[in-house]
Amino acid sequence: MPPQDRANGPIRTKDIKRPPRSLIKSLEGVGSATATSELKLLGIRNAFLQGPVCMTPGVCVVGPALTLQFMPKREDVYPESEYVEPEQQLHRHVLYHTRPGDIVVVDARGDMTSGVFGDMMMTYFRGQGGLGVVIDGCIRDSAHIKQLGLGLWLRGVTPNFHTQTNIYPFAVNVPIACGGALVQPGDLIIADDDGAVVVPIQLAAKLAEAATVHVEWEQFSHERLAAGGDLRKYYPLTDAARVEYEAWKRR
Amino acid sequence: MPPQDRANGPIRTKDIKRPPRSLIKSLEGVGSATATSELKLLGIRNAFLQGPVCMTPGVCVVGPALTLQFMPKREDVYPESEYVEPEQQLHRHVLYHTRPGDIVVVDARGDMTSGVFGDMMMTYFRGQGGLGVVIDGCIRDSAHIKQLGLGLWLRGVTPNFHTQTNIYPFAVNVPIACGGALVQPGDLIIADDDGAVVVPIQLAAKLAEAATVHVEWEQFSHERLAAGGDLRKYYPLTDAARVEYEAWKRR
Amino acid sequence: MPPQDRANGPIRTKDIKRPPRSLIKSLEGVGSATATSELKLLGIRNAFLQGPVCMTPGVCVVGPALTLQFMPKREDVYPESEYVEPEQQLHRHVLYHTRPGDIVVVDARGDMTSGVFGDMMMTYFRGQGGLGVVIDGCIRDSAHIKQLGLGLWLRGVTPNFHTQTNIYPFAVNVPIACGGALVQPGDLIIADDDGAVVVPIQLAAKLAEAATVHVEWEQFSHERLAAGGDLRKYYPLTDAARVEYEAWKRR
Amino acid sequence: MPPQDRANGPIRTKDIKRPPRSLIKSLEGVGSATATSELKLLGIRNAFLQGPVCMTPGVCVVGPALTLQFMPKREDVYPESEYVEPEQQLHRHVLYHTRPGDIVVVDARGDMTSGVFGDMMMTYFRGQGGLGVVIDGCIRDSAHIKQLGLGLWLRGVTPNFHTQTNIYPFAVNVPIACGGALVQPGDLIIADDDGAVVVPIQLAAKLAEAATVHVEWEQFSHERLAAGGDLRKYYPLTDAARVEYEAWKRR
Amino acid sequence: MPPQDRANGPIRTKDIKRPPRSLIKSLEGVGSATATSELKLLGIRNAFLQGPVCMTPGVCVVGPALTLQFMPKREDVYPESEYVEPEQQLHRHVLYHTRPGDIVVVDARGDMTSGVFGDMMMTYFRGQGGLGVVIDGCIRDSAHIKQLGLGLWLRGVTPNFHTQTNIYPFAVNVPIACGGALVQPGDLIIADDDGAVVVPIQLAAKLAEAATVHVEWEQFSHERLAAGGDLRKYYPLTDAARVEYEAWKRR
Amino acid sequence: MPPQDRANGPIRTKDIKRPPRSLIKSLEGVGSATATSELKLLGIRNAFLQGPVCMTPGVCVVGPALTLQFMPKREDVYPESEYVEPEQQLHRHVLYHTRPGDIVVVDARGDMTSGVFGDMMMTYFRGQGGLGVVIDGCIRDSAHIKQLGLGLWLRGVTPNFHTQTNIYPFAVNVPIACGGALVQPGDLIIADDDGAVVVPIQLAAKLAEAATVHVEWEQFSHERLAAGGDLRKYYPLTDAARVEYEAWKRR
Repeated sequence: MPPQDRANGPIRTKDIKRPPRSLIKSLEGVGSATATSELKLLGIRNAFLQGPVCMTPGVCVVGPALTLQFMPKREDVYPESEYVEPEQQLHRHVLYHTRPGDIVVVDARGDMTSGVFGDMMMTYFRGQGGLGVVIDGCIRDSAHIKQLGLGLWLRGVTPNFHTQTNIYPFAVNVPIACGGALVQPGDLIIADDDGAVVVPIQLAAKLAEAATVHVEWEQFSHERLAAGGDLRKYYPLTDAARVEYEAWKRR
Repeated sequence: MPPQDRANGPIRTKDIKRPPRSLIKSLEGVGSATATSELKLLGIRNAFLQGPVCMTPGVCVVGPALTLQFMPKREDVYPESEYVEPEQQLHRHVLYHTRPGDIVVVDARGDMTSGVFGDMMMTYFRGQGGLGVVIDGCIRDSAHIKQLGLGLWLRGVTPNFHTQTNIYPFAVNVPIACGGALVQPGDLIIADDDGAVVVPIQLAAKLAEAATVHVEWEQFSHERLAAGGDLRKYYPLTDAARVEYEAWKRR
Repeated sequence: MPPQDRANGPIRTKDIKRPPRSLIKSLEGVGSATATSELKLLGIRNAFLQGPVCMTPGVCVVGPALTLQFMPKREDVYPESEYVEPEQQLHRHVLYHTRPGDIVVVDARGDMTSGVFGDMMMTYFRGQGGLGVVIDGCIRDSAHIKQLGLGLWLRGVTPNFHTQTNIYPFAVNVPIACGGALVQPGDLIIADDDGAVVVPIQLAAKLAEAATVHVEWEQFSHERLAAGGDLRKYYPLTDAARVEYEAWKRR
Repeated sequence: MPPQDRANGPIRTKDIKRPPRSLIKSLEGVGSATATSELKLLGIRNAFLQGPVCMTPGVCVVGPALTLQFMPKREDVYPESEYVEPEQQLHRHVLYHTRPGDIVVVDARGDMTSGVFGDMMMTYFRGQGGLGVVIDGCIRDSAHIKQLGLGLWLRGVTPNFHTQTNIYPFAVNVPIACGGALVQPGDLIIADDDGAVVVPIQLAAKLAEAATVHVEWEQFSHERLAAGGDLRKYYPLTDAARVEYEAWKRR
Repeated sequence: MPPQDRANGPIRTKDIKRPPRSLIKSLEGVGSATATSELKLLGIRNAFLQGPVCMTPGVCVVGPALTLQFMPKREDVYPESEYVEPEQQLHRHVLYHTRPGDIVVVDARGDMTSGVFGDMMMTYFRGQGGLGVVIDGCIRDSAHIKQLGLGLWLRGVTPNFHTQTNIYPFAVNVPIACGGALVQPGDLIIADDDGAVVVPIQLAAKLAEAATVHVEWEQFSHERLAAGGDLRKYYPLTDAARVEYEAWKRR
Repeated sequence: MPPQDRANGPIRTKDIKRPPRSLIKSLEGVGSATATSELKLLGIRNAFLQGPVCMTPGVCVVGPALTLQFMPKREDVYPESEYVEPEQQLHRHVLYHTRPGDIVVVDARGDMTSGVFGDMMMTYFRGQGGLGVVIDGCIRDSAHIKQLGLGLWLRGVTPNFHTQTNIYPFAVNVPIACGGALVQPGDLIIADDDGAVVVPIQLAAKLAEAATVHVEWEQFSHERLAAGGDLRKYYPLTDAARVEYEAWKRR
């Protein structure tokens, strides 16, 4: 019944289609805050994945989403035997698709007692060039995982493993809900201290374009405001401020 | 990307496989409380769909599950144009499959501001012989719908329509989560005042068998307890009580 | 500091401006479900007061909103002495403005341990012609109040009185938040089994107009669907169904 | 480790001390709303058991509390074997103490997936003269139990049995928390449509006394307010109203 | 309808009355924990703003509150045009009042998807001498804002801007609820790692006085306890300990 | 009524039985993640205390549990006078039992407005050799306490003291619920960045044994995965990888 056929031979899951490297590059300067504002103008009311919070301050990532979907555990469809047979475990399969720059996004249904990935899984993911993980749930072995250099957006951490109590991995690279937002496999994720944002792949180029309209004067305004300048004058720039700004730019 | 192909011609969604009528009949005397107890013995720790509550006291239903899955609304995949084109609306398509005795189970993600079905949809469902609806969310037009004779297990009611704010119908007759339990299309639902329970289809016959072990003496015990009898004597039956019971039975 | 001057003489609070009786009349056939749909088309994404639920099934009300706002209780601004001096209690003052057909809407901050109104207050309100009460919180003396004939939309009931624990009445006939929606004094409320909806007063005429576009054929469709008719044919009406409908109408 | 010694022979649990029947009688006219108000004056800020709601409208009970405490289930202290041995089950033992007029109060930790009592247990309780049950959790077999004539204050219902998932009965007639309030075995419970209230046994006589200060004029005021009388005149009574009242009383 | 007149000319909002600098100075040694204890003695049961947590460990602030109130967004009172006209945006206006030492307190209704302030606003606020911000909600651009040297007490962070989804700024320098506590404009805020506390301005002098009762021996006790001393002897000081303390003090 | 007799002379509370030092030593290498996995195999479905989160990253503790139970505050059983009499305060008594290596576990009922321990209490606890504290609630004076070198697993921090609002200390060294798990006095606690886990004392030796099955090859696998090795080959080890591993080990 799940998208993956488990009955006949080894499990095969679909890969995602990745965008050109140049598109991702063009979005790397765009933070999550700018992304949500511009996506609003492009018609997306809320692209924010509310729930997972940044556990790795200062890390900013942009990359395509591999997706993993959990479902409530039911013993007839997830017997213990599956747990002991590694190649049956779908949370491994999503990682098998990892290419450098990929981001794994997981619908763990907000569960706070299941650790979706542990140290070994995340070490492998990092070894394959994975950039970050966004989970509407938890990881385990967090002390070790935090040292791998990955970006982590999580609801929390737990010592429990992923099928210990309530949920089990159900599907790989299918559309999922994460943090109240729809994420399709191959959509882009922009994530930083403010949180994670989904960029629908078909809007990514438009977003990059909108965000490259260079606001040259923002640095100038920032300096002025930090020095006690008047918000009404420097943000946005008044005509009077623009004269100052032109002089500032010439220096 | 959803299971339904929307690009080419009219939408087609899969039907479910229904069990023999006799199997359902054999479960009609089994309430939800007995079902969860027996399913526990069969290895299912929790078959209860926690969240939707009974809105139609006294109504008991048993039947196969048609399933409908909602996802967070995202304007690029659910444009307004879809709303205005009835045949594009997947919540109608799940109803098109209705056969007499069917039960619709909906993963509405717990959303309390979206009315999954309104009066017209439910009237049609009833007209086709539908028995009941279990929703991890709400309906609208509830005053009218309550008069149709359907069983209703809901989180609540709302005047809003289904795609007014946060969610949209995404897939029909796929495995879903509802009330923290996994429901596969074609599983059986037993629902009454205590709530709704999923019976995995491959366990249904075993459940029916276990539940037909007739506890003849329960009515006797019930009478005795109601009359002030001692729990220790009458539930379960002691040897002394069994003698009384045999006499009671002969009368 | 509150909008009411408590220092000098008796408290005076502002009344609301009520719309012509004809406007309210024109909305009395419009239920909350139709109201939210039409308001969506008028640009209001969500007019539903999510939280208060209908405690009086079958009661439908339309009327202008008197508003009452609670604030977290702080002993320096709400001393016990205020409680013992009836004319200092603002929850009485909102009722003093009652005219026949009025509806009181209360922001009780979702508090589940404070009973905003008791039997005497509600009896007075009913005696003045009040229609109903919408509270993002609770009432007390609920057994008596349910017999008054008022419409009640509440989060729950409690034996506690309104300033017993956490909140106190702060302002009368000011804009409030109730159930996650903004309600301005004098806005209209439409409430029934599905819940309560705010109609911004400046949109009320437009809503009435939109809702009076008579859907004559809906009753016909309803009958057909209840009799097992095809949703695709009867909702909305196809050309074939329209011919049937015309014949039906002539009978 | 629990208060009951399970190691040596049959389990014995403590009974409660019941107040004189006359004390309970003197409180039977006092509803929960009056009780919380008067207890506030006696120094108890919040005697309301917030959480369990009335499932049996119109039923009012006053009686001493038998208490039952649940704890999170841990397989080493609650093995399956305990479940199959009825006399090991503590939820039975609390019922063994039932005397006519008793009320069982249960700390079920707010759990929504465990049915504390089923039909047989409640039939026995009723047969022994039990008045009502207050549970910070659920019952099962609710359709049958609602017909027994008991008062029920619950968070909800479920088909699951009491040790199916997360909790197990741990102690009988010990102080418990229920709905955020402390209940000691032998305290009095007053419960009606507004909810359940704990009356510390040592304050019960004072409460009865305070509540018997007869407010003769309240019925008069009620009539006047229902007929459109002025709140400022009739509640509390002004001197002018008192004259009317005296005349009314003479009729 | 809001306190600010938006119809006629530029918006004007009220400033607050600030206490003498000496009063604030006298409270700077008093942490939030001491403040709540002493305020309890002064009759304030709970002065803690529960919800916003400290995001800037080690920063302690004392200062007068500028207040900003959000309301649920409703499209008829907050049209898009307001967003594009900076001088119409009330969240700017509260910052215009900033004097050195001020603290902005915001009722953002607990909303987790709206960023009340971004980098530019907070840079301006810091440039004007602002000390800190307490929000029952979120900021955006958090990576930059954390470097400004402000104290931050927040429920979280988000990339969304303040009117992107559910709320909009409604009033400046009015009484607000924040974290379940009432804050009046001009009240003092004491905030540190434990959280933020409101000091009603009329109690500030009394609090300062109570807190200056010098507990000279506390440092002595602290040393003794850290070295393994007996709590019963050293906290509070016994007579025996007092002798030791006197000796310690002489050294 | 509480386990401690308060009526006659000074309060005495029971101590716990501590396991041999060697047992604790044997568990010190076992983290919380390994502990939950192995306890699952030993029949404990969920040993994780969900709720309290690690506030002291990098700190790992193993030790026996002293327990403290809070109950909802009720003024008749917890009068103000108790607060002012230190030796009546039970939260002090649990600390009196401290031996080096002990861990205090507190059921604070999830309350976010009560600070269970302050600076002086925790300094004393540390002075006696206490290792850490796990609280289903908060501490106060957190800035100071974080510098003591204790491990802290908490739901949060607050400036309020422990009996300021809703709860009061009720019993020492009794079985408690903390984070949805049962903790008996003398059980072992293993806590680190992932959270706190209860090890039933009778399972501690088995857990230690299971965990000492040395997985020598894990470090090897870790290195290979970090370097881009294939998960399918190195985790678990295939035969081919085992050859590599033997060579690696010889180096």
